[in-house]
Amino acid sequence: MKIIIVGASGTMGRYLKNAFEKEHEVITAATEGCELKVDITSAGSIENMYKQAGSFDAVISTAGPTFVGPWSKLNDKEFRLGVNGKMMGQVNLVLIGQHYINPKGSFTLITGALAHDPQKNFANASAANGALEGFVRAAAIELENGIRINAVSPTVIENSPQYFPYFPGDIPVTMQQLEYGFRKAVFGANTGQVINLMC
Amino acid sequence: MKIIIVGASGTMGRYLKNAFEKEHEVITAATEGCELKVDITSAGSIENMYKQAGSFDAVISTAGPTFVGPWSKLNDKEFRLGVNGKMMGQVNLVLIGQHYINPKGSFTLITGALAHDPQKNFANASAANGALEGFVRAAAIELENGIRINAVSPTVIENSPQYFPYFPGDIPVTMQQLEYGFRKAVFGANTGQVINLMC
Repeated sequence: MKIIIVGASGTMGRYLKNAFEKEHEVITAATEGCELKVDITSAGSIENMYKQAGSFDAVISTAGPTFVGPWSKLNDKEFRLGVNGKMMGQVNLVLIGQHYINPKGSFTLITGALAHDPQKNFANASAANGALEGFVRAAAIELENGIRINAVSPTVIENSPQYFPYFPGDIPVTMQQLEYGFRKAVFGANTGQVINLMC
Repeated sequence: MKIIIVGASGTMGRYLKNAFEKEHEVITAATEGCELKVDITSAGSIENMYKQAGSFDAVISTAGPTFVGPWSKLNDKEFRLGVNGKMMGQVNLVLIGQHYINPKGSFTLITGALAHDPQKNFANASAANGALEGFVRAAAIELENGIRINAVSPTVIENSPQYFPYFPGDIPVTMQQLEYGFRKAVFGANTGQVINLMC
Protein backbone atom coordinates (compact mmCIF):
# COMPACT_ATOMS: atom_id res chain seq x y z
CA MET A 1 0.00 0.00 0.00
CA LYS A 2 1.20 3.51 -0.76
CA ILE A 3 0.61 5.88 2.16
CA ILE A 4 1.13 9.64 2.34
CA ILE A 5 1.86 10.88 5.87
CA VAL A 6 1.09 14.58 6.19
CA GLY A 7 2.83 16.11 9.19
CA ALA A 8 5.62 13.56 8.87
CA SER A 9 8.21 15.86 10.44
CA GLY A 10 6.38 15.92 13.78
CA THR A 11 6.52 13.59 16.77
CA MET A 12 3.59 11.44 15.69
CA GLY A 13 4.35 11.52 11.97
CA ARG A 14 7.94 10.37 12.43
CA TYR A 15 6.86 7.47 14.61
CA LEU A 16 4.19 6.36 12.16
CA LYS A 17 6.61 6.57 9.24
CA ASN A 18 9.00 4.22 11.00
CA ALA A 19 6.16 1.90 11.95
CA PHE A 20 4.58 1.64 8.51
CA GLU A 21 7.53 1.85 6.11
CA LYS A 22 8.60 -1.71 6.95
CA GLU A 23 5.62 -3.11 5.08
CA HIS A 24 4.38 -0.24 2.95
CA GLU A 25 5.54 2.52 0.67
CA VAL A 26 5.43 5.70 2.72
CA ILE A 27 5.68 9.19 1.27
CA THR A 28 6.32 11.93 3.80
CA ALA A 29 4.93 15.44 3.59
CA ALA A 30 5.30 18.50 5.80
CA THR A 31 6.05 22.20 5.59
CA GLU A 32 9.73 21.27 5.46
CA GLY A 33 12.15 18.40 5.88
CA CYS A 34 10.07 15.78 4.05
CA GLU A 35 9.83 14.33 0.55
CA LEU A 36 6.83 16.50 -0.32
CA LYS A 37 6.37 20.07 0.79
CA VAL A 38 2.89 21.10 1.88
CA ASP A 39 1.33 23.98 3.79
CA ILE A 40 -2.05 22.58 4.82
CA THR A 41 -3.43 26.08 5.44
CA SER A 42 -3.34 26.55 1.65
CA ALA A 43 -5.72 24.62 -0.58
CA GLY A 44 -3.40 25.32 -3.50
CA SER A 45 -0.44 23.82 -1.67
CA ILE A 46 -2.47 20.69 -0.85
CA GLU A 47 -3.52 20.31 -4.48
CA ASN A 48 0.09 20.66 -5.54
CA MET A 49 1.19 17.98 -3.05
CA TYR A 50 -1.31 15.48 -4.40
CA LYS A 51 -0.26 16.22 -7.98
CA GLN A 52 3.33 15.44 -7.07
CA ALA A 53 2.51 12.33 -5.04
CA GLY A 54 1.24 10.22 -7.92
CA SER A 55 -1.16 7.35 -7.27
CA PHE A 56 -1.72 6.50 -3.58
CA ASP A 57 -3.97 4.44 -1.33
CA ALA A 58 -4.03 6.18 2.01
CA VAL A 59 -3.53 9.56 3.63
CA ILE A 60 -2.54 9.76 7.26
CA SER A 61 -2.61 13.23 8.75
CA THR A 62 -0.91 14.16 11.99
CA ALA A 63 -0.82 17.84 11.12
CA GLY A 64 -2.67 20.06 13.48
CA PRO A 65 -1.58 23.56 14.48
CA THR A 66 -3.89 25.17 17.04
CA PHE A 67 -3.59 28.09 19.46
CA VAL A 68 -2.45 26.97 22.88
CA GLY A 69 -2.51 29.67 25.53
CA PRO A 70 -4.55 31.49 28.11
CA TRP A 71 -8.24 32.03 27.41
CA SER A 72 -7.73 35.76 28.07
CA LYS A 73 -5.63 35.95 24.88
CA LEU A 74 -8.11 33.99 22.79
CA ASN A 75 -9.75 36.17 20.18
CA ASP A 76 -10.85 35.75 16.59
CA LYS A 77 -7.31 36.08 15.28
CA GLU A 78 -5.78 33.45 17.57
CA PHE A 79 -8.74 31.13 17.07
CA ARG A 80 -8.12 31.11 13.31
CA LEU A 81 -4.83 29.28 13.91
CA GLY A 82 -6.73 26.09 14.68
CA VAL A 83 -9.52 26.86 12.23
CA ASN A 84 -7.17 27.32 9.28
CA GLY A 85 -4.67 24.74 10.56
CA LYS A 86 -5.91 21.61 12.27
CA MET A 87 -9.53 21.99 11.14
CA MET A 88 -9.65 23.32 7.56
CA GLY A 89 -6.19 21.98 6.77
CA GLN A 90 -7.42 18.46 7.32
CA VAL A 91 -10.87 19.09 5.82
CA ASN A 92 -9.12 20.26 2.65
CA LEU A 93 -6.81 17.23 2.66
CA VAL A 94 -10.02 15.21 2.20
CA LEU A 95 -12.06 17.53 -0.06
CA ILE A 96 -9.13 17.82 -2.47
CA GLY A 97 -7.54 14.41 -1.91
CA GLN A 98 -10.72 12.50 -2.79
CA HIS A 99 -10.08 13.41 -6.44
CA TYR A 100 -6.57 11.89 -6.36
CA ILE A 101 -6.80 8.86 -4.03
CA ASN A 102 -7.24 5.34 -5.38
CA PRO A 103 -10.64 3.61 -5.11
CA LYS A 104 -11.04 1.92 -1.71
CA GLY A 105 -8.44 4.32 -0.33
CA SER A 106 -8.67 5.90 3.10
CA PHE A 107 -8.14 9.16 4.93
CA THR A 108 -7.18 9.10 8.60
CA LEU A 109 -7.17 12.44 10.38
CA ILE A 110 -5.86 13.43 13.78
CA THR A 111 -8.29 14.84 16.30
CA GLY A 112 -8.04 14.60 20.09
CA ALA A 113 -9.69 13.94 23.42
CA LEU A 114 -9.98 17.69 24.06
CA ALA A 115 -13.17 17.64 21.97
CA HIS A 116 -14.94 15.94 24.86
CA ASP A 117 -12.54 16.36 27.75
CA PRO A 118 -11.42 20.00 27.75
CA GLN A 119 -8.35 21.38 29.48
CA LYS A 120 -7.54 25.01 30.22
CA ASN A 121 -5.62 26.77 27.42
CA PHE A 122 -6.89 24.43 24.71
CA ALA A 123 -10.35 25.75 23.71
CA ASN A 124 -9.13 26.24 20.15
CA ALA A 125 -8.17 22.57 19.88
CA SER A 126 -11.46 21.47 21.47
CA ALA A 127 -13.34 23.29 18.72
CA ALA A 128 -11.09 22.07 15.89
CA ASN A 129 -11.29 18.49 17.15
CA GLY A 130 -15.06 18.65 17.49
CA ALA A 131 -15.33 20.00 13.96
CA LEU A 132 -13.21 17.15 12.62
CA GLU A 133 -15.30 14.54 14.41
CA GLY A 134 -18.47 15.95 12.87
CA PHE A 135 -16.81 16.20 9.47
CA VAL A 136 -15.52 12.62 9.54
CA ARG A 137 -19.00 11.26 10.21
CA ALA A 138 -20.52 13.41 7.45
CA ALA A 139 -17.79 12.71 4.88
CA ALA A 140 -18.15 8.97 5.45
CA ILE A 141 -21.66 9.00 3.98
CA GLU A 142 -20.60 11.17 1.03
CA LEU A 143 -17.31 9.72 -0.20
CA GLU A 144 -17.63 7.42 -3.20
CA ASN A 145 -15.64 4.54 -4.75
CA GLY A 146 -15.29 2.79 -1.41
CA ILE A 147 -13.13 5.57 0.00
CA ARG A 148 -13.14 5.55 3.79
CA ILE A 149 -12.46 8.21 6.41
CA ASN A 150 -11.75 7.97 10.12
CA ALA A 151 -10.04 9.97 12.82
CA VAL A 152 -7.68 8.98 15.62
CA SER A 153 -8.21 10.77 18.91
CA PRO A 154 -5.46 10.59 21.53
CA THR A 155 -5.13 12.52 24.74
CA VAL A 156 -1.60 13.81 25.48
CA ILE A 157 1.02 11.44 24.02
CA GLU A 158 4.01 9.97 25.85
CA ASN A 159 6.55 11.53 23.49
CA SER A 160 5.35 15.07 24.22
CA PRO A 161 6.18 15.49 27.92
CA GLN A 162 6.17 19.27 27.54
CA TYR A 163 2.36 19.03 27.48
CA PHE A 164 1.97 16.77 30.54
CA PRO A 165 1.41 19.71 32.96
CA TYR A 166 -1.58 20.82 30.89
CA PHE A 167 -3.28 17.43 31.18
CA PRO A 168 -3.47 16.69 34.91
CA GLY A 169 -4.60 13.16 35.57
CA ASP A 170 -4.48 12.06 31.95
CA ILE A 171 -2.41 8.91 31.50
CA PRO A 172 -0.35 9.64 28.38
CA VAL A 173 -1.15 7.56 25.30
CA THR A 174 1.85 5.47 24.27
CA MET A 175 3.27 5.80 20.78
CA GLN A 176 2.40 2.16 20.21
CA GLN A 177 -1.25 2.82 21.10
CA LEU A 178 -1.20 5.71 18.64
CA GLU A 179 0.25 3.45 15.95
CA TYR A 180 -2.45 0.85 16.62
CA GLY A 181 -5.14 3.52 16.29
CA PHE A 182 -3.87 4.52 12.86
CA ARG A 183 -3.35 0.87 11.95
CA LYS A 184 -7.01 0.15 12.72
CA ALA A 185 -8.15 3.12 10.63
CA VAL A 186 -5.90 2.50 7.61
CA PHE A 187 -5.96 -1.30 7.40
CA GLY A 188 -9.41 -1.98 8.89
CA ALA A 189 -12.72 -1.60 7.10
CA ASN A 190 -14.50 0.97 9.25
CA THR A 191 -15.53 4.41 8.09
CA GLY A 192 -16.88 7.48 9.86
CA GLN A 193 -15.32 6.41 13.14
CA VAL A 194 -13.44 8.37 15.77
CA ILE A 195 -10.95 5.96 17.33
CA ASN A 196 -10.51 7.10 20.91
CA LEU A 197 -7.14 6.43 22.52
CA MET A 198 -7.73 7.31 26.13
CA CYS A 199 -5.97 5.01 28.53
CA MET B 1 -33.71 39.16 33.04
CA LYS B 2 -32.45 41.01 29.98
CA ILE B 3 -31.85 38.67 27.04
CA ILE B 4 -30.29 39.40 23.66
CA ILE B 5 -31.52 37.07 20.91
CA VAL B 6 -29.09 36.98 18.00
CA GLY B 7 -30.72 35.69 14.84
CA ALA B 8 -34.06 37.03 16.02
CA SER B 9 -35.38 37.51 12.49
CA GLY B 10 -35.25 33.77 11.76
CA THR B 11 -37.74 30.98 12.41
CA MET B 12 -36.28 29.95 15.75
CA GLY B 13 -35.41 33.45 16.93
CA ARG B 14 -38.89 34.82 16.32
CA TYR B 15 -40.47 31.96 18.25
CA LEU B 16 -38.11 32.37 21.20
CA LYS B 17 -38.70 36.13 21.27
CA ASN B 18 -42.43 35.57 21.60
CA ALA B 19 -41.91 32.89 24.23
CA PHE B 20 -39.54 34.85 26.45
CA GLU B 21 -40.73 38.45 26.13
CA LYS B 22 -43.75 37.76 28.33
CA GLU B 23 -41.56 37.50 31.41
CA HIS B 24 -38.25 39.05 30.35
CA GLU B 25 -36.79 42.01 28.56
CA VAL B 26 -35.79 40.75 25.12
CA ILE B 27 -33.53 42.65 22.74
CA THR B 28 -33.53 41.34 19.19
CA ALA B 29 -30.50 41.34 16.89
CA ALA B 30 -29.99 40.21 13.31
CA THR B 31 -28.49 41.40 10.05
CA GLU B 32 -31.69 43.33 9.47
CA GLY B 33 -35.23 43.82 10.74
CA CYS B 34 -34.36 43.78 14.46
CA GLU B 35 -33.60 46.31 17.18
CA LEU B 36 -29.86 45.77 16.89
CA LYS B 37 -28.02 45.18 13.65
CA VAL B 38 -25.27 42.57 13.70
CA ASP B 39 -23.30 40.61 11.12
CA ILE B 40 -21.90 37.70 13.14
CA THR B 41 -19.23 37.03 10.52
CA SER B 42 -17.58 40.28 11.64
CA ALA B 43 -15.96 40.54 15.07
CA GLY B 44 -16.21 44.32 14.80
CA SER B 45 -19.95 44.15 14.17
CA ILE B 46 -20.41 41.88 17.20
CA GLU B 47 -18.42 44.26 19.40
CA ASN B 48 -20.56 47.14 18.16
CA MET B 49 -23.77 45.23 18.94
CA TYR B 50 -22.71 44.61 22.52
CA LYS B 51 -21.74 48.24 22.98
CA GLN B 52 -25.21 49.30 21.87
CA ALA B 53 -27.04 46.68 23.93
CA GLY B 54 -26.12 48.04 27.34
CA SER B 55 -26.12 45.75 30.37
CA PHE B 56 -27.57 42.25 29.78
CA ASP B 57 -27.83 38.85 31.43
CA ALA B 58 -28.13 36.32 28.64
CA VAL B 59 -27.32 35.82 24.98
CA ILE B 60 -29.35 33.37 22.95
CA SER B 61 -28.01 32.65 19.48
CA THR B 62 -30.04 31.03 16.74
CA ALA B 63 -27.78 32.39 14.01
CA GLY B 64 -26.10 29.79 11.91
CA PRO B 65 -25.43 30.13 8.20
CA THR B 66 -23.80 27.02 6.70
CA PHE B 67 -23.38 25.64 3.18
CA VAL B 68 -26.16 23.24 2.26
CA GLY B 69 -25.68 21.44 -1.02
CA PRO B 70 -24.16 18.50 -2.81
CA TRP B 71 -20.82 17.18 -1.57
CA SER B 72 -19.46 17.53 -5.11
CA LYS B 73 -19.72 21.32 -4.77
CA LEU B 74 -18.11 21.40 -1.35
CA ASN B 75 -14.70 23.03 -1.45
CA ASP B 76 -12.72 25.34 0.80
CA LYS B 77 -14.71 28.39 -0.30
CA GLU B 78 -18.14 26.89 0.35
CA PHE B 79 -16.97 25.35 3.62
CA ARG B 80 -16.00 28.79 4.93
CA LEU B 81 -19.69 29.76 4.94
CA GLY B 82 -20.28 27.59 7.99
CA VAL B 83 -16.82 28.24 9.42
CA ASN B 84 -17.22 32.02 9.36
CA GLY B 85 -20.96 31.88 10.02
CA LYS B 86 -22.37 29.29 12.38
CA MET B 87 -19.02 28.36 13.92
CA MET B 88 -16.84 31.47 14.32
CA GLY B 89 -19.86 33.77 14.43
CA GLN B 90 -21.03 32.08 17.60
CA VAL B 91 -17.52 31.58 19.00
CA ASN B 92 -17.00 35.32 18.66
CA LEU B 93 -20.36 36.07 20.28
CA VAL B 94 -18.85 34.42 23.37
CA LEU B 95 -15.21 35.56 23.17
CA ILE B 96 -16.34 39.17 22.78
CA GLY B 97 -19.56 39.01 24.77
CA GLN B 98 -17.87 37.73 27.93
CA HIS B 99 -16.46 41.23 28.41
CA TYR B 100 -19.94 42.80 28.31
CA ILE B 101 -22.29 40.27 29.94
CA ASN B 102 -23.35 40.60 33.58
CA PRO B 103 -21.81 38.26 36.20
CA LYS B 104 -23.73 34.96 36.37
CA GLY B 105 -24.92 35.60 32.82
CA SER B 106 -25.23 32.89 30.20
CA PHE B 107 -24.57 32.18 26.55
CA THR B 108 -26.73 29.65 24.72
CA LEU B 109 -25.63 28.72 21.23
CA ILE B 110 -27.38 26.76 18.50
CA THR B 111 -25.76 23.60 17.23
CA GLY B 112 -27.56 20.55 15.80
CA ALA B 113 -27.92 16.80 15.61
CA LEU B 114 -25.94 16.71 12.35
CA ALA B 115 -22.76 16.73 14.46
CA HIS B 116 -23.45 13.11 15.38
CA ASP B 117 -26.13 12.07 12.92
CA PRO B 118 -25.04 13.26 9.47
CA GLN B 119 -27.25 13.69 6.44
CA LYS B 120 -26.19 14.11 2.84
CA ASN B 121 -25.63 17.75 1.77
CA PHE B 122 -24.88 18.93 5.32
CA ALA B 123 -21.20 18.10 5.96
CA ASN B 124 -20.48 21.78 6.55
CA ALA B 125 -23.09 21.93 9.33
CA SER B 126 -21.80 18.68 10.85
CA ALA B 127 -18.36 20.24 11.19
CA ALA B 128 -19.63 23.60 12.49
CA ASN B 129 -21.89 21.86 15.02
CA GLY B 130 -19.09 19.59 16.19
CA ALA B 131 -16.81 22.59 16.62
CA LEU B 132 -19.42 24.38 18.72
CA GLU B 133 -19.93 21.34 20.95
CA GLY B 134 -16.20 21.15 21.63
CA PHE B 135 -16.02 24.89 22.17
CA VAL B 136 -18.92 24.96 24.62
CA ARG B 137 -17.30 22.31 26.80
CA ALA B 138 -13.95 24.13 26.74
CA ALA B 139 -15.40 27.60 27.33
CA ALA B 140 -17.35 26.34 30.34
CA ILE B 141 -14.12 25.68 32.24
CA GLU B 142 -12.62 29.03 31.25
CA LEU B 143 -15.41 31.59 31.68
CA GLU B 144 -15.26 33.55 34.94
CA ASN B 145 -17.70 35.43 37.21
CA GLY B 146 -20.19 32.58 37.14
CA ILE B 147 -20.86 33.01 33.45
CA ARG B 148 -22.32 29.87 31.92
CA ILE B 149 -22.40 28.49 28.38
CA ASN B 150 -24.49 25.75 26.79
CA ALA B 151 -25.73 24.75 23.36
CA VAL B 152 -29.10 23.55 22.14
CA SER B 153 -29.01 20.82 19.52
CA PRO B 154 -32.17 20.10 17.53
CA THR B 155 -32.62 17.94 14.49
CA VAL B 156 -34.87 19.43 11.78
CA ILE B 157 -37.55 21.67 13.33
CA GLU B 158 -41.28 21.51 12.65
CA ASN B 159 -41.46 25.08 11.36
CA SER B 160 -38.93 24.41 8.58
CA PRO B 161 -40.76 21.85 6.43
CA GLN B 162 -38.57 22.76 3.44
CA TYR B 163 -35.82 20.73 5.12
CA PHE B 164 -37.91 17.62 5.88
CA PRO B 165 -36.84 15.80 2.67
CA TYR B 166 -33.20 16.10 3.75
CA PHE B 167 -33.83 14.38 7.10
CA PRO B 168 -35.54 11.08 6.25
CA GLY B 169 -36.83 9.35 9.34
CA ASP B 170 -36.12 12.25 11.69
CA ILE B 171 -39.20 13.22 13.69
CA PRO B 172 -39.16 17.03 13.56
CA VAL B 173 -38.50 18.82 16.85
CA THR B 174 -41.47 20.94 17.87
CA MET B 175 -41.02 24.64 18.47
CA GLN B 176 -42.11 24.06 22.06
CA GLN B 177 -39.34 21.48 22.54
CA LEU B 178 -36.90 24.00 21.13
CA GLU B 179 -38.17 26.65 23.55
CA TYR B 180 -37.79 24.23 26.46
CA GLY B 181 -34.22 23.48 25.42
CA PHE B 182 -33.31 27.16 25.51
CA ARG B 183 -35.32 27.61 28.70
CA LYS B 184 -33.24 24.90 30.39
CA ALA B 185 -30.00 26.49 29.21
CA VAL B 186 -30.87 30.10 30.11
CA PHE B 187 -32.78 29.62 33.36
CA GLY B 188 -31.12 26.42 34.63
CA ALA B 189 -27.75 26.18 36.34
CA ASN B 190 -25.85 23.87 33.99
CA THR B 191 -22.79 24.84 32.01
CA GLY B 192 -20.79 23.15 29.26
CA GLN B 193 -23.80 21.09 28.21
CA VAL B 194 -25.18 20.23 24.80
CA ILE B 195 -28.93 19.89 25.19
CA ASN B 196 -30.02 17.34 22.61
CA LEU B 197 -33.53 17.71 21.22
CA MET B 198 -33.98 14.55 19.23
CA CYS B 199 -37.46 13.14 19.46
